[in-house]
This record gives sequence, structure tokens and C-alpha cells, in this order.
Amino acid sequence: MTIRVTVWNEYRHEKQNVHVASIYPEGIHNAIGGYLGTQEQIEVRTATLDEPEHGLTDEVLAATDVLIWWGHIAHGEVRDDIVEKVRDRVLGGMGLIVLHSGHASKVFERLLGTKTGTLKWRDDGERERVWVIEHGHPIAEGLGDYFEIPKEEMYGERFEIPAPDELVFISWFEGGEVFRSGCCYRRGKGKLFYFRPGHETFPIYHQPEVLKVIANGVRWAAPTAGATSSAGRVAPLEPIEPIGKPKASAAN
Amino acid sequence: MTIRVTVWNEYRHEKQNVHVASIYPEGIHNAIGGYLGTQEQIEVRTATLDEPEHGLTDEVLAATDVLIWWGHIAHGEVRDDIVEKVRDRVLGGMGLIVLHSGHASKVFERLLGTKTGTLKWRDDGERERVWVIEHGHPIAEGLGDYFEIPKEEMYGERFEIPAPDELVFISWFEGGEVFRSGCCYRRGKGKLFYFRPGHETFPIYHQPEVLKVIANGVRWAAPTAGATSSAGRVAPLEPIEPIGKPKASAAN
Amino acid sequence: MTIRVTVWNEYRHEKQNVHVASIYPEGIHNAIGGYLGTQEQIEVRTATLDEPEHGLTDEVLAATDVLIWWGHIAHGEVRDDIVEKVRDRVLGGMGLIVLHSGHASKVFERLLGTKTGTLKWRDDGERERVWVIEHGHPIAEGLGDYFEIPKEEMYGERFEIPAPDELVFISWFEGGEVFRSGCCYRRGKGKLFYFRPGHETFPIYHQPEVLKVIANGVRWAAPTAGATSSAGRVAPLEPIEPIGKPKASAAN
Amino acid sequence: MTIRVTVWNEYRHEKQNVHVASIYPEGIHNAIGGYLGTQEQIEVRTATLDEPEHGLTDEVLAATDVLIWWGHIAHGEVRDDIVEKVRDRVLGGMGLIVLHSGHASKVFERLLGTKTGTLKWRDDGERERVWVIEHGHPIAEGLGDYFEIPKEEMYGERFEIPAPDELVFISWFEGGEVFRSGCCYRRGKGKLFYFRPGHETFPIYHQPEVLKVIANGVRWAAPTAGATSSAGRVAPLEPIEPIGKPKASAAN
Repeated sequence: MTIRVTVWNEYRHEKQNVHVASIYPEGIHNAIGGYLGTQEQIEVRTATLDEPEHGLTDEVLAATDVLIWWGHIAHGEVRDDIVEKVRDRVLGGMGLIVLHSGHASKVFERLLGTKTGTLKWRDDGERERVWVIEHGHPIAEGLGDYFEIPKEEMYGERFEIPAPDELVFISWFEGGEVFRSGCCYRRGKGKLFYFRPGHETFPIYHQPEVLKVIANGVRWAAPTAGATSSAGRVAPLEPIEPIGKPKASAAN
Repeated sequence: MTIRVTVWNEYRHEKQNVHVASIYPEGIHNAIGGYLGTQEQIEVRTATLDEPEHGLTDEVLAATDVLIWWGHIAHGEVRDDIVEKVRDRVLGGMGLIVLHSGHASKVFERLLGTKTGTLKWRDDGERERVWVIEHGHPIAEGLGDYFEIPKEEMYGERFEIPAPDELVFISWFEGGEVFRSGCCYRRGKGKLFYFRPGHETFPIYHQPEVLKVIANGVRWAAPTAGATSSAGRVAPLEPIEPIGKPKASAAN
Repeated sequence: MTIRVTVWNEYRHEKQNVHVASIYPEGIHNAIGGYLGTQEQIEVRTATLDEPEHGLTDEVLAATDVLIWWGHIAHGEVRDDIVEKVRDRVLGGMGLIVLHSGHASKVFERLLGTKTGTLKWRDDGERERVWVIEHGHPIAEGLGDYFEIPKEEMYGERFEIPAPDELVFISWFEGGEVFRSGCCYRRGKGKLFYFRPGHETFPIYHQPEVLKVIANGVRWAAPTAGATSSAGRVAPLEPIEPIGKPKASAAN
Repeated sequence: MTIRVTVWNEYRHEKQNVHVASIYPEGIHNAIGGYLGTQEQIEVRTATLDEPEHGLTDEVLAATDVLIWWGHIAHGEVRDDIVEKVRDRVLGGMGLIVLHSGHASKVFERLLGTKTGTLKWRDDGERERVWVIEHGHPIAEGLGDYFEIPKEEMYGERFEIPAPDELVFISWFEGGEVFRSGCCYRRGKGKLFYFRPGHETFPIYHQPEVLKVIANGVRWAAPTAGATSSAGRVAPLEPIEPIGKPKASAAN
């Protein structure tokens, strides 16, 4: 069954900074989307902040099985009503993959409840080693014990997230920190995956292991056909069993 | 060490409905607070919706170790800025106990991220049997295998919460439903406990087992002195280890 | 990709009790296996206690992606060395589905660590209502809010299991109890699913919803191709980074 | 309320190796026990492998609220019947703190179910930095963002444990690895804490932060008075509610 992916990108750095533009001439969304488009049973579209409704119209969201989110310097410009629509759609079953600086996005914070913007960081282009903690997890498929990113921005603990339902990766940084780099959550009928790598000044989204993890994440987060479920508050419900009968015994 | 508790109550039903007023002449907050005040090392104050700043001024919050929350028909009247202050204080370590219809409060939804108002319900005054799932948990201290509430409003699954970090109680209802009635969460440095019982038209907060659970919850949710921690984003951080050294080996 | 399932059954009741034999003339394993065999991309074999090595030779285990386990009165006769082989295979990635009275099996207890035989029970043929707690979970696919089993043996809490990684079903019983009836775990590279229904004196494994859940469980528990991973203790490991360098700073 | 701690030590290295003996002249158990004995409301005894019943008689276990476990080269000599007694006592409420190489002990493996001996290691005396992941957790009380151990044996992921219920510490190692160094579990009515630091050839158990964490762990793992609970299988249970009544409706 085809998975319909929308790659959302803030798409500002690439237009404002020649160095970033040289790494991602078509934007981060197209680097990621281009790779995903080569994968079997994945269909890709992109959306960016400066499009009308940030490219996330009701039609687009309704046709999205998994949404990928990259943002950094313009989190505040994302409209609250669109954040709510994304949240609704996730609770209804859409997968969400939040990348790197998307940790501080409204969408991620709204769904997790904590101040997910809180962490340590340093932009010195240091070595990151991403260790696989759960080898049997579908998101780790095809990886060895670890993979390395030669130059990265460091993110360090404490990262203010609720404890993940599944912790897939932990990063080691050359400068001395650690970070929970692959975090899975279930919220409503939807699945969320936070994946740390991805600073815009390095060619992270051209690295094969990083792209493989994103593709694995898409397959993991895609909704199964799903059970039927009442949406919202159901009230008042008729009793299924008779009420008001005496107890069988005084046992306790 | 004394635990400073603030019992917050919407306090509308008791003023508008003579039946509710006959059960809680001083309000639900004083029924709960009165009991807690008899417990060792617990110090109680109350706060209600119609007080200035809903009774939750910066001073009150700063002097609160555990906040208890009861609301029902006026969730929408709670000011967003005060919701944010409560959330900040929880992330900083304050315990939060959310009771019954408080499941749909702004405070609870903001901290959990999902549409916590979503559940089934029926107000037929039926029997509820609250089963203890984790007997070793401090919140279950002093209880047997279960306790009963003779007449209650039913809440039924699916309850749209993130899977609790610890599930302490599951309720059985006479009319045929089940519910996760005691749910523990950690968010930031704070602990949350959701406890289901408590419809305003029944004398739930006069029942000894219910009061005992609330007191147990207060002790569980109270912050320990706590570790120091950087608040917010730390940036940029100086490296602890030198950056730019060659690797020792090509091992993998 | 085809999932190779082995349905293991103690297969004693069916040979000793005419009532059970009338419900499962070919044995519980063939009732379940027969259904699974009609599903796409599932390939089934069976194995029973009284076969040599309980039917679980090294060859059979090596050719099993998901093992289904039903046992009741002869848990003690299962050889410890075969329990260890099953455990090893699960830690290496094989899925395991434990049904009903299999909760007290050596295999389940060995993998979970607690005394999983501990629970309340009553064999009065009462109504069970299985509520779906996680509608988005693949194991709940195709179900409504709940399904009913007209006559069942009751299992009641407290069930001495570690808190499940994912709780998919909670049962309501006519006689007044509740039970965590669908429990998911990850252990090593393998996934476990405990599913409560299934007493041998009722036609449980002929009921469509029950069979559907088992088939869903098989698909959920099947290993993905899986990451490579060192088996066992790796020692001593060569350092990847140089050891013995001074720190960059005295920061802390 | 006084917490009665028993510190168990294999106590072989200290008798066989002069270097280890110079660091722990009275044994690791007395280094840890000596510190705990200075803490308020903690009462300490010790027990070692070569004592009759490994020092863990029924009387000693019955008088132990929290058991601390250190073993390394003689895991295989620990009697299986005593492992079972320790396990029973943990399931009944006793806290258990497993230190360092105790990860491969029979007691730990029996309670967790996985091959907890599986991890990477290297004994090069490198720097370990233990990062606090949950600042609000009582086990992290009094710590800063991290603490360092100047020379340690490295343990690296993947560590084959079930995902911890609470992950309190993650270690960074100079040689390039990471490790889940502080892991909390609930099993039955008991709490378990695994704490990584502690190689016998370094003065780890003289370091203030390490000792503080162990004392915090003791307070966290100590049982509260605890709820009453049926031990073992309860059967057959009398129904609390009448069985055999018709349903109220055909609703679904």
C-alpha cells in the first residue's frame, strides 16, 4: 500500500544563506523528498512555510499519511490554526517525523506538552556517533551498531521531552555530551518519531544512513488501516449491562 | 518536610445547584482540603475560579508543592496565561493531581498534548469498582484489591491520553465499561496523577478510600528537593572535551 | 514477505476430555492454524508437547518467525532446555504470542521475569467484553470499540506482569473484574504479545474477532529484516576515540 | 522509618588481588555500607558469597528492605535456590540495587528475563561522564547536570535489558561509547535500580557522587508500607456481581 508523504520545510536558510544554498540548492525538503521518491511504495509531495496556509491545506493534510517536519528560525511564524490541524490529523492517525531543530516547533511542543525547545547545543561542527539502542526496531533496520556523522551541531541533555515510548538511538558527541536522538511516541491513533540529525550547514540529508533512517521512520509511522473509533466525547452512552441490580455477594 | 497543597476548584455547581450544595456545602475544595488538613505534614490552601487570577497568583503558585485540580462546566473560562503559569510550575517540579472531569481541563490537555476530553460517559449513578493494578505503588498504599463507589458517573474507554508512565487503577462499571482511573506521568521535573472518581452529584469526596488515594497522591507527587538543572535552552555551550582530534581507529 | 508461524499446543485437554474434543476435534493448534493458513503471506505449521522435543527442534525454531503458545495443565512437563531455546530465539528476533493459560507457562515467565502465573480466576462461563484501548495499534486493526465473548473463564487483576510496553485491550467481566487482556513487550530483538481469551471449554478460537486479533498479532510480532547486532558480550572492545587526552575545559 | 539495607558482595577480588585490596581493604561491601551507615534512617548489614547461604538466610532477607548487589567473577557460584528467594522477596516488595558487573548476575537476569550480561566493554581506565536525564527524579537528587568518573571500565550499548521504566542516567565514554547507566524497573511490588559505575580496580565507591546516588537509590527503592494483595493464584474466585443476566441492550 502506497504511503503518501508530505515533506514540510521552513525553507528560509536555503534562500538567505549561500553556504546552505550550496548544500541544498533545491531546499532541504527536496533533498529528503528526492530520496524518498526513489523508495518503493512511497509517494512524495513537499510544502513550505511561505506557501499559502504553509502548503498544508485541508486537502493536502487529508492526503498525507506521514508528515515530515523541518523548521528552525521561523517557528513563531507558523499559524496556530494550522498547528491545530496538524495535531488533529496526527491524533487521527497521521504519522509525524520531526527532524533536528524541529524539536522547538509548535507542532512538536503542542503534541508532547513539555517545553521541547529545552536542550543544550553548540555549533562547532563536531563528530556525532549515533548508537542503535534497539536493534530489533524497524527504524533501525539495515544499520550496524552505530553510524557516524562527521560534522554536526551538538544537542545535549537534558532534553525536555516526556520519556519516549521507545528509545531507538542515543548520540555520543566529540565535545562530551549525549542525547536521546531517536524517540518514538504514540499520541491518539498517530505515531511520532523525533530524529535528531540535520543541521542546515552540513550535508546531513545527503548521508545514506540518515536518509535510510528517515525512510524507515516513514514506514514505521504510516497508519495501518486502523480500527474504527468514536471521535470526541460520546455522551450520554446507553448502558450495555443493566444497572441497579444487587451484588452477588459481599465479597471483598 | 511539610507539603504545601493548593486545592483548586471551579466552584460553580455548588453555588448553582441545591443538590450539589447539600453534598458539598463548603465546596468540593473544602471537602478535600478539610481532609488533607488533618494529615501529617500537609498544609492546605484553596483557590477557586472566580477569585482574582483564579486564586493562582504567582505568590500562591510559588508556595505550592502540589496543586489539585477540579473543574467541569467552565474549563473555557480559565485564562490561558494562568494555564501557562501552572504548566511552567509543573515542569519546574510542582506536583499536579487532576480529578474526574478535570480530564477536559486546559491545564491537563496542555501538559499531555492529546485531546484528553475524549472519552465515553453516562450519568446514571451506577456502581464503580476501582481495581488496584500496582499494589506496591505508593498511591495504592493502604488499599485492598479493590474498592467500590456505590453511585458514580461512568467514564469509559477509549480515553485519549498518552499511555501513562504508571497505571495504578482500572475501573469496572456496572453498565459494562472499563476505564484507566489512576494514571501517573512525569513531565519536566514534575509529576502528574489523574484520578477518575468524583462526580459532583454524589458524595465521592466524603468516601474514605477516595480521600486516602488523594492524600497518597499528594505524597507521591510532591517534589523531592530536586537536582539543579539549566532552565531553557543553553547556548552556545563550550565543549567539555577537545574537538577536532582524529579517531583512534577505523573500528566498527 | 511470508511470515512463518508455528502454533504450539500442549494438546492434552482435547485428547482427555470429550467436551473439549467436541469443540476442537483437531486440537486448538489446528483451529488457530487452520484460520491463519487462510491469511495472505502467512505459512503455518504446528507443534505439540508430546512430539519429540515438543515439536520444537532447532530446525523448526530456525524456520519460525512467530511462535504461538497455548498450554495449561502440563506447563511443568516442558523441558527447560527447550524453554531456553525458545527464549534465545525470541531475544534474537522471533515473535511470540502467548494465549490465555499460557500466562503461567515457563516460556512466558522466563522472558518476563515475574510470577506471571499470579492472577484471579473463575470458571463460570460468564460474559467478557474486550475493550480496545489503543485504536491506532496494528493489533486492534478492524475492531470496533469492543467485542464480546459470550462465555469465558474469568481472569482478574492483579496479574503479576511487568507493566506492558503497550496495553491494547482491557477486559470487563460480568462477575465484576477487569484484566489487562492485550499486552505487548519487546525483549531483545523480539516482540511478545499476550492475548487473554481462550479457555478450552468454550469455542473461543472459532470466534472471528479472536482469530482476527491473533492474525493481527502475528503481523505485528513478525521480525522486520532486522539490524545486525553483536550477539553476547563483546570484549574487549578497541577504543574508537583516543583515550587519555586532557579535557578541553573545567566547565561544569 | 528506618530502611534496613543489606549490601551483598561477591568479595573475591579483594581477597585475591593486592591492587583491589589496597582500594577496598575491607571489601566493596564495607566501603558502600560504611557510607550508608552514616546516613539518617538507614541501617546496614553486609553479606558475602562465601558465607553460609551466601549470607542471605531467610532471616536476613526477611529483615532486608533494600538489597544491594555487587558480583563479577563468580556469578555462577550463586545458588539457584537463593536466587529464587531473592526474586520472591523483590516481587513481594524488597528493593534491589544492582551495581556495575552485577548486570550479569543470576538475580538480575532472572528478574528481567533478558540476557542482561550482553553489552560491550573495555577496561582501559577511561573517563566516564554520567549525564542526568531526569532532573526531577529522586535518584538524581543533589546532582548537577552531570558528574565525571576520572577512570572507569567502559560499558557500551547495546545493553540487552528490557526498556527501563525510568531512565535516569546516560553515560558518555572517552573512547566513543554511550550507555544507559541508571535504569529503574518495577517488578511485582518491588523496585529495581541498576547503576553502572563501579569497577573494582578504581576507587569508584569512594567517590561522593557515586555514593550519593546509591543512597538516593536506597531511599527510592525502599518499599512503602504497601497495599495488601493476594499472593499467587486465587482460585476459584466467587463472583462479586451476578452472572447470567441478559444484557441491557444490543448497543455497540
